[in-house]
Amino acid sequence: MKKVSKNPLTNKDYIIPELLDDKKNINNFISKNQGKPIVLVQGLGFVGSVMSIVCANALNEEYAVIGTDLPSVSSYWKIASINDGFFPVTSSDPKVEEYYLNAKKKGNFYATYDTFSYQFADIVIVDINLDVQKESTLDYELSGFDVDLNGFKSAIRDIGRNCKEDVLILIETTVPPGATKTASKIIKDEYLKRGLSFDKVSIGHSYERVMPGPNYIDSIQNFYRVYSGINKESAKNVESFLRTIIKTDEYPLTKLGNTNATEMSKVLENSYRAMNISFMVEWSRFAEEAGVNLYEVVDAIRMRPTHKNIMLPGIGVGGYCLTKDPLLASWSKQNINGDGYQGLPMSEQAVSTNDQMPMYAFSFLQSFFRGESLIGKKVQLLGVSYLSGVGDTRYSPVEIFYKNLINIKCNVSLHDPYVSYWEELGLTVSQDLGDFDGMDIVVFTTGHSEYANNKIIINNLSNLQNILIYDTIGVLSNEEIEILSKTNTVKVLGRGDI
Amino acid sequence: MKKVSKNPLTNKDYIIPELLDDKKNINNFISKNQGKPIVLVQGLGFVGSVMSIVCANALNEEYAVIGTDLPSVSSYWKIASINDGFFPVTSSDPKVEEYYLNAKKKGNFYATYDTFSYQFADIVIVDINLDVQKESTLDYELSGFDVDLNGFKSAIRDIGRNCKEDVLILIETTVPPGATKTASKIIKDEYLKRGLSFDKVSIGHSYERVMPGPNYIDSIQNFYRVYSGINKESAKNVESFLRTIIKTDEYPLTKLGNTNATEMSKVLENSYRAMNISFMVEWSRFAEEAGVNLYEVVDAIRMRPTHKNIMLPGIGVGGYCLTKDPLLASWSKQNINGDGYQGLPMSEQAVSTNDQMPMYAFSFLQSFFRGESLIGKKVQLLGVSYLSGVGDTRYSPVEIFYKNLINIKCNVSLHDPYVSYWEELGLTVSQDLGDFDGMDIVVFTTGHSEYANNKIIINNLSNLQNILIYDTIGVLSNEEIEILSKTNTVKVLGRGDI
Repeated sequence: MKKVSKNPLTNKDYIIPELLDDKKNINNFISKNQGKPIVLVQGLGFVGSVMSIVCANALNEEYAVIGTDLPSVSSYWKIASINDGFFPVTSSDPKVEEYYLNAKKKGNFYATYDTFSYQFADIVIVDINLDVQKESTLDYELSGFDVDLNGFKSAIRDIGRNCKEDVLILIETTVPPGATKTASKIIKDEYLKRGLSFDKVSIGHSYERVMPGPNYIDSIQNFYRVYSGINKESAKNVESFLRTIIKTDEYPLTKLGNTNATEMSKVLENSYRAMNISFMVEWSRFAEEAGVNLYEVVDAIRMRPTHKNIMLPGIGVGGYCLTKDPLLASWSKQNINGDGYQGLPMSEQAVSTNDQMPMYAFSFLQSFFRGESLIGKKVQLLGVSYLSGVGDTRYSPVEIFYKNLINIKCNVSLHDPYVSYWEELGLTVSQDLGDFDGMDIVVFTTGHSEYANNKIIINNLSNLQNILIYDTIGVLSNEEIEILSKTNTVKVLGRGDI
Repeated sequence: MKKVSKNPLTNKDYIIPELLDDKKNINNFISKNQGKPIVLVQGLGFVGSVMSIVCANALNEEYAVIGTDLPSVSSYWKIASINDGFFPVTSSDPKVEEYYLNAKKKGNFYATYDTFSYQFADIVIVDINLDVQKESTLDYELSGFDVDLNGFKSAIRDIGRNCKEDVLILIETTVPPGATKTASKIIKDEYLKRGLSFDKVSIGHSYERVMPGPNYIDSIQNFYRVYSGINKESAKNVESFLRTIIKTDEYPLTKLGNTNATEMSKVLENSYRAMNISFMVEWSRFAEEAGVNLYEVVDAIRMRPTHKNIMLPGIGVGGYCLTKDPLLASWSKQNINGDGYQGLPMSEQAVSTNDQMPMYAFSFLQSFFRGESLIGKKVQLLGVSYLSGVGDTRYSPVEIFYKNLINIKCNVSLHDPYVSYWEELGLTVSQDLGDFDGMDIVVFTTGHSEYANNKIIINNLSNLQNILIYDTIGVLSNEEIEILSKTNTVKVLGRGDI
């Protein structure tokens, strides 16, 4: 039977070839792009696919770009779609489609699964995923976790077995600090087997700060970068490459002392955010108890430049980075760099606290209904993505909140202006707000700007009575709460004075 | 025997009067300041004394200011000194002396211990201290703590027993959230006893953000303020008063919903800082293990506006606020507002972690000497205050570091450009750097700008050999470390690659 890989965005099926041989097309692509340096991007996910088109539209160089991924059911469609005219990522940033179409027009972007392509690469960018396996209690408290480096090592081995002696390998994947050094050892071993000199290869690490959303391309092209190399020559070559794709006159590059430092910098950045959110979780409970509106308190504190980054809690933390990066760091401290047993307890605790937030948001809802059961209530969720302004549902905290409602047999309606299909749950999501008639509970679950200062929502809700309006992310203004409270009950996470 | 209270700044002794009656002087002061609204400031410490002269030099009103404190051995000298021509706080901010002298010249500032003065007050500002009693293990791990509200309550009772019916009471003291409500109850009780109406009094809370140092006065006059009142009228009156002493056109006031909110805002601000430092402690250990220079990593991360407030660890956290405010909050959550048992564990942990920093800084030093003993070494400490650019030694982490060195019979020399007398330890501190000749160890313990890019220090140190130079706060540049490493050993907390 033929294996099929479906593009979830277009619903088109692509048959995975039985004979994995793409030599002809690759040779064809190479000969059409004579004279251009070849950039090979490993991994065509949210980072790799967009990095590919940024390289194909580089500011100061004309590259030919080969995007690679595995010929698996979950990934093959990305390869096939790219070559078929459909970019595998949708975005509110119009530049994404524009860059893709421009690359297709120029003919300098091709995708393949065949490692035959590696031999042509002048530069390899590693953008594969490196996940953390978490174990949790029923209350979503973190009870254990592990990092499996095998996928990463295997991708690096492909480079070592196939690439040219003087290739530049730039690792962008978020890794446990120490992984680029591990990668160097693998490359060295493989080069030795092939009789190649390890002295000529360049290996570096420079992490991306990609933000899917309206500034997707700019988050690569127009943003600060930190980089390092395993030696001076490597760092120099990484720098030269980055200068061709990033506006470094406006966003100067920062070189760090070694690859451990850039790897640590990335996971520290995200741990800083994760920890600052988790810290506010306990203050949110305090505010609820003390009759304080934590949102206005945080606004007041943010007026101080030294306190601008103070965060707000809410329904929870989602996305691919903040939910795992502190664990990558702690794992590295335990298993690669450290003394073998002591990790980063505060950073681990941050992840655990944040993981429990949606469960608390649900308990908070239940607490309004003391005596009355939530069973069978009609609930409207406003927003399913984890971040405002973005249609990204990866590890969305709304997922756990939703599952809890379903568990007690609520009838849940979903709305999100950016999501029509909730991939992780296989659900369609409405993009039509409706008038909320017949709803028992309306929950603001994502802070999309479309929900803020929305007179239609406020009007429709105030025309109804006895609805519970529950704001889990502080999107309602004081004035809106006052209006809504006249006919309905309003509750806000982190607010005790309503 | 007569009780004496010594001004530690001038060494002058003041005899505490046996008969505590200052009516004549107070009446005299009042009659000389006819027509001016009277501001009475409770507490003449680092905040109250400077707040007094800010009020005496108010931007938009001509006040007469009465500073009050207790006639105790530890406080009476502040009262006597103010009336004697010596301001009780020294500062690198020239405005402090200027404002004091101007008030003395105008004759609108008088200090007293006599509550007889309270009856004249139109506005009372509460600036007394409210301390936390900590218990710690031998390793400075926090093992318990308590808050004693009695001093605060007694100060408020003085107001309730003596003040006019329509006085404005503005609490500035950092308190456990809920304390202004407690104060209101005390005022109400006392007014009832005196047959006064509670409806006419105004009570509010507005916390100061005073920073002793070169911008001492500006940290009151030219900075953002948050305020609240126990009712609308109170909030309005607090606002009117603040507008007379603060440049509110440049630094607009922020009104919060209730007094719990402003009280929480203050302790949250400081807990945010304390927690962000404690978070970095574990990353500092990680950096040391992984051969990473955490200072350059943090510099790189701070380029992101969303990450500007990421902190650096160091020898420890000192001062009056960050070392206790998270505990005030946790105590309030347990004892005033909350469910009776659950405090703020992350915020408590932050204090505990920070309290242990100087002990770690000492252990780190010991670890370089594996095999060799530190006993009897000659050690030069550069800096004894807890903050760069300031001569404030309250709860300085250098104290614990110093005591550890003394414990193992080191011969310790002290230097600090801002401190000539270390009050807490009763030690004189040199302000002459010397050439370090004969020293075994030189430790940078405070990040004073006088130590950064100081060619004399670097020259003197590089002329010597086999000194251990230990930077606990990252004041040395990469270039300086390179120079110093040629003849000496250099170690930096949070740096693993030297």
